Parts: sequence; C-alpha cells; structure tokens
Amino acid sequence: MELVIPPLDEHAMRLASERQARLTKPAGSLGRLEELSISLAGMTGRLDPPLKDRVVFTLAADHGVADEGVSAYPREVTAQMVLNFLRGGAAINVLARQANARVVVADLGVDADLPNHPDLRMLKVRRGTANITRGPAMSVAEAQQAIEHGRHLVRDELGAGLDVALTGDMGIGNTTASAALICALTELDPQDVVGRGTGVDDSGLERKRDAVRKALAVNATRLTQTPIDALAAVGGLEIAGLVGIILEAATRGRPVVIDGFISSAAALVAARIASGATGYMIASHRSQELGHGAVLRRLGLKPLLELDLRLGEGTGAVLALPLLEAAVRLLNEMATFDEAGVSERAQEAAIIDRTTE
Amino acid sequence: MELVIPPLDEHAMRLASERQARLTKPAGSLGRLEELSISLAGMTGRLDPPLKDRVVFTLAADHGVADEGVSAYPREVTAQMVLNFLRGGAAINVLARQANARVVVADLGVDADLPNHPDLRMLKVRRGTANITRGPAMSVAEAQQAIEHGRHLVRDELGAGLDVALTGDMGIGNTTASAALICALTELDPQDVVGRGTGVDDSGLERKRDAVRKALAVNATRLTQTPIDALAAVGGLEIAGLVGIILEAATRGRPVVIDGFISSAAALVAARIASGATGYMIASHRSQELGHGAVLRRLGLKPLLELDLRLGEGTGAVLALPLLEAAVRLLNEMATFDEAGVSERAQEAAIIDRTTE
Repeated sequence: MELVIPPLDEHAMRLASERQARLTKPAGSLGRLEELSISLAGMTGRLDPPLKDRVVFTLAADHGVADEGVSAYPREVTAQMVLNFLRGGAAINVLARQANARVVVADLGVDADLPNHPDLRMLKVRRGTANITRGPAMSVAEAQQAIEHGRHLVRDELGAGLDVALTGDMGIGNTTASAALICALTELDPQDVVGRGTGVDDSGLERKRDAVRKALAVNATRLTQTPIDALAAVGGLEIAGLVGIILEAATRGRPVVIDGFISSAAALVAARIASGATGYMIASHRSQELGHGAVLRRLGLKPLLELDLRLGEGTGAVLALPLLEAAVRLLNEMATFDEAGVSERAQEAAIIDRTTE
Repeated sequence: MELVIPPLDEHAMRLASERQARLTKPAGSLGRLEELSISLAGMTGRLDPPLKDRVVFTLAADHGVADEGVSAYPREVTAQMVLNFLRGGAAINVLARQANARVVVADLGVDADLPNHPDLRMLKVRRGTANITRGPAMSVAEAQQAIEHGRHLVRDELGAGLDVALTGDMGIGNTTASAALICALTELDPQDVVGRGTGVDDSGLERKRDAVRKALAVNATRLTQTPIDALAAVGGLEIAGLVGIILEAATRGRPVVIDGFISSAAALVAARIASGATGYMIASHRSQELGHGAVLRRLGLKPLLELDLRLGEGTGAVLALPLLEAAVRLLNEMATFDEAGVSERAQEAAIIDRTTE
C-alpha cells in the first residue's frame, strides 16, 4: 500500500491560534471549538476550510461471529437496514438530511443478494466473514481488497466534491469483531472493551466476552504480525473498508470525522498502518459502548459529543458537523478586539490598583 | 407575581416514548436524543414541535462587585461588548447566524449610556448593581422590575414567533454574583462554586472567593427570605432579567435552553420561584466554570454538551439547537420496524438455539 499522508500545516495552525487570541472573547473561552479550528487549519492549510461537501460513508457487511449469539438482532437485519438506508428511513438518512450531507452506502460483504440500486455501491468482497471464534475472519488479500474499495470510494467522491469525510457502519455482530480487533492491537482486556452493542443482556454480554477471548486465542499467531493481519484475523469487511476511507481521506488532506466504536476500531488500524493519519481524525463522540473511551485515548483523540449513542451508521459523526462549522465560522467571522474597540485583558496591576483604592 | 406554568403533557410523552421503541434502531441507541424528543413532546404537547423561531435573549448589566478585582477585564467591556453584539461581531452573533436564531440584546443595567439602536432593547433598571461585598446588589423592587422586563421581552417576541427561547448574558463580574447567588440558594460552599470566570489567575480566584464570602456574610439576613430577596441581595440585573425570561417561557409552554453558569444561576432562582419551570428547561452545556455541574445537578438537568466553554452570551445554548432539531427529526422522520420490514429484536430463545446448534 502506497500512502503519503501530508504533514499538518503548522504555519496555518499558528495563524489560527494567533487569531483566536485576538477575537472578542476571553482567551480560551470557546474551549474545544478553538482547538478544533486550529486542528482544521492544520489539516487543510486554511483558516477558512470549506465544509460544504460532507460525505458520510456507511459501509455494511456481515459477521460470522453473529452465530455465537452476540447480538440482540438476527443477521438478516444487516441487509434489511441497507434497504432502509436506500429508502431514506434510517437515523443516518434523517441526520444527513438535516446536516446537508451525502450518504454513500456500500456493500462490502453483506451475506445476502442485495438488489441493484443507483445509490448502493456494490463492493462485496465475500458474503460475510467467517466465524472468528474458529479461525480468521478473512484472508489478508480480502482485507486488503476491502481497504482498497474504501480508498476508491473516497477517490470517486472527490470528483463530486468532498470537503470532509465521515465514517459509518452497519453489520450485525460488528461490535464483537471491533472489540476483538481493539484487544488485538492494544493491551486492553476483553473485560474492559466488550460492551452490550445493540443491547444484549448479561448472558449475551458473557457470550460476547467469550467469543472475543476465543477469537484472540484461536488467531493468536496472526495477531502478532502486521495490523492488516490482525484486521484479517478478527476484523470485518466494513471495518476494513473504513480503514481505507480514513487512510485515503488523510492522504488527500481531508478531515475525517470518526463515528463510534466500530469506526474507532478502523481508526486504530489506520493509525497503525500510517501514524500520520491520526492528524486528520476528528472524534465525533464517545458512545455508550464500554471500550470506546479507551480506544479514543490510545488514538490521542478527545470526543466532541457524549450523548450515550450506540447506533453507528455514522450518526454520531454527522451530529458533530455543526460543531466543525461553528469552529470555522467563529474563527473567521468574529470581530477582533481592535476591530470592535473592546478593551483587551486588563493588566493585572491595574486591577490590583483598583482593589486597593 | 402571577405564574401559571402548565404541567408537562404526559400523554404526548408516552406517545413519543412508544414511537421511539418502534423506530428502526436498537431501543435506546439514540441515547440523550431519545430523552430529548420525549421532553420536548412533554413541553409542547406535540411529537413534532416547531423549532423554527429560535430567540436568544442576551441580557447585559454591570456589577458593583467588579470593583473587587474579580474579573480579568475592566468594567467598560460590558458596554463595549453590547456594541459588538449590535454590530454582529461577537461569538453569539456568529453562532446565531449559523443556527438561524434571532438575538435580542437588552440593557438591563449597563453602567454606561448606550446609544439608541433599533436592535437594542433599553430596559435599564439602574446603572449596575451596588457592590455586594458591602450590602445588597439592588432593592427587591428593582429585582422584581428586572424580572418583569424579562417576562415582557418574551411576550413581545411571541408575536414575531418564538418556538424556543434561549438564555444569554453579558456582564463583567457576573460569575462572582452568580456564584454568590448559587451559594445563597444551595448548601454549596464558595470553594466548590467560584471559578476563574473570564480567566483570572490564582490571586484573582482568591479575590473572587473572598468577595463571595463577604457578600454572603454582609447580606446574611436577606438570604434566608424569598428567592427574590436572595436575587436582590447578591444577584445581578441581567440575572434577574433571565429569571423573567425563563419563567415567562415556561408559562407559555415554550422550551427554554439554558446557557452556562450565569444562566443556570437564573434557572435556580426561577425554579425556586416556580418549581414547574424546570420541566421546560434544557441544559445546553456544562461550562468550565467550577460550580456549574453542581448547579445543574440540583436543577435535575443533564447538559447536552461539554465543550469547555466559558463565554456566556448564549453561545452554549445556540450550539445545542442542532441537537434539539435532530431529536425531533429522528422521532418524526425515521421509519418504524413495520414500515421498513426490519426484524425487531430477536427472541432470546432463538439466539440461544442457534448458539447451541
């Protein structure tokens, strides 16, 4: 894989930071939005990066591990939800309409024959992964193919306009695969990573933990090799596709908004393949899924939102878009102290004088 | 004060909750947005409450306690920032433009002669409060007048359209007055409530704590009486105006989005005057100001955002608007399981059967 990720533009970041200090507000009082405006300047080389063309990539695939009873939903729901995306009835459709974002739906490995549809990208690598509790999810070549499909999706959308990429996922069983992948790539234990996903009960949670432990054990030798070996061993096809989305967006100097737990597992793989990719990642939210916070910390990312979401599809990523827009608008549209004739921070001496009058 | 706050519509809340359970997503997976859609249904009696006419009330006043060196900025900044609001150069203007919200700027007690301006509501009760470390901030009659001005502002805007009210403030020294008011109305200690406001250093923070302790001591007998007595003793004119905004919005059955620390102090007074008002409050964010979280907990409110903001003006409130809109759109526009032909949660038995095959 040939990847050249441009370094962040430190000059633009310095200019953004200096301008923040001159705006009519106490220094630092816009908190995370100030940091975000500086990050976006670094990614794009501009204090006023365009954010008009927003594309959320919602990639779908099935997981053999669903056979282990790790989800509250049957496997057929993956395909049914893809159809729901195409009809515009899912949460991601509603939020994308509100945020004026395009949704690109792609089948990376759904275990069903989906109909031809103008809005569905057919990129099926195989019909679902194999059951990771018994062996590898897929071959390394299949994982690489799914990554390449993700990269192609980004390249295709650049032509139609792509200012910011957003990640999204659909796949019954994919919190289990993501948890396994996160444990494989970090020192984290399944006990601290495996969560309730779509909402399994206590015994479902125990089955998920068992499935992840079995997957890590049966694939142990594969997990000590490259990040792509780990991805192929215990990951998923939509996760691999998202690795490609993230890597290609970073290569093209585009901010990429990371959705929830599954997208963060993909981000972790992308960061292990090319550490420079993290500079282009924006963590949209911390989900309710148990290990999500720990993964984000290991990526060095602070989530913008904490709304107890656990839906995926790209919903959290799209919800963060107004904050990106706010960060850029504030930096560009606010008056400076000079322009507004507002007194800058009083000298401490002057204040002390007054108090001792 | 005659106040009749309508009870929340429990029937609409039940309908909203039942519809959430039928939408094509795992139950509860939209987290806080599900709760918010149900709350908004309760406030408005509708599953699809309008949110088009958004009015942020940014009320300004000065504080005698600024003489104690409790702010990083000189008192003149209050008037200068009001002019900045009128020119459209402040953070609240930028965010309101993005969110398509109207900003109503009102002078409740700025210690300067502001020019006539079509967008400035002149409601000056007095030129700033007295120094609360030496006696009461204002008379009870003045506090009542400021509350009435706030109520009038809401009534005036109802004619132009007001679906949701948002609170905002400007006043050098007002984190000190708000902290004193919060300590007066709760069991909280200044040590746990007084924060750095606009960004004072350690000695400034110590001066603020001292000022609050002195204010509580010198006004002690007034603080044991009604909430309006406490407000008059250690509050502020813009804070009193915001009490009126909140009470009138609740009386009219309109959701009111509470901004940061100062607005939350006003919300606390409003809740003590009429406990039913809390049902109409939405906490937009938790600010960086030390005691804000504790106040919100006492109001029974969970903030939607945590972005380390500490600016006021209504900025946090406006930033929460897209989440309100998302909550309502999701409830109304998402397909149900029936409509989409998506399988509902599988019976646990079926899953277990498959795992033991």
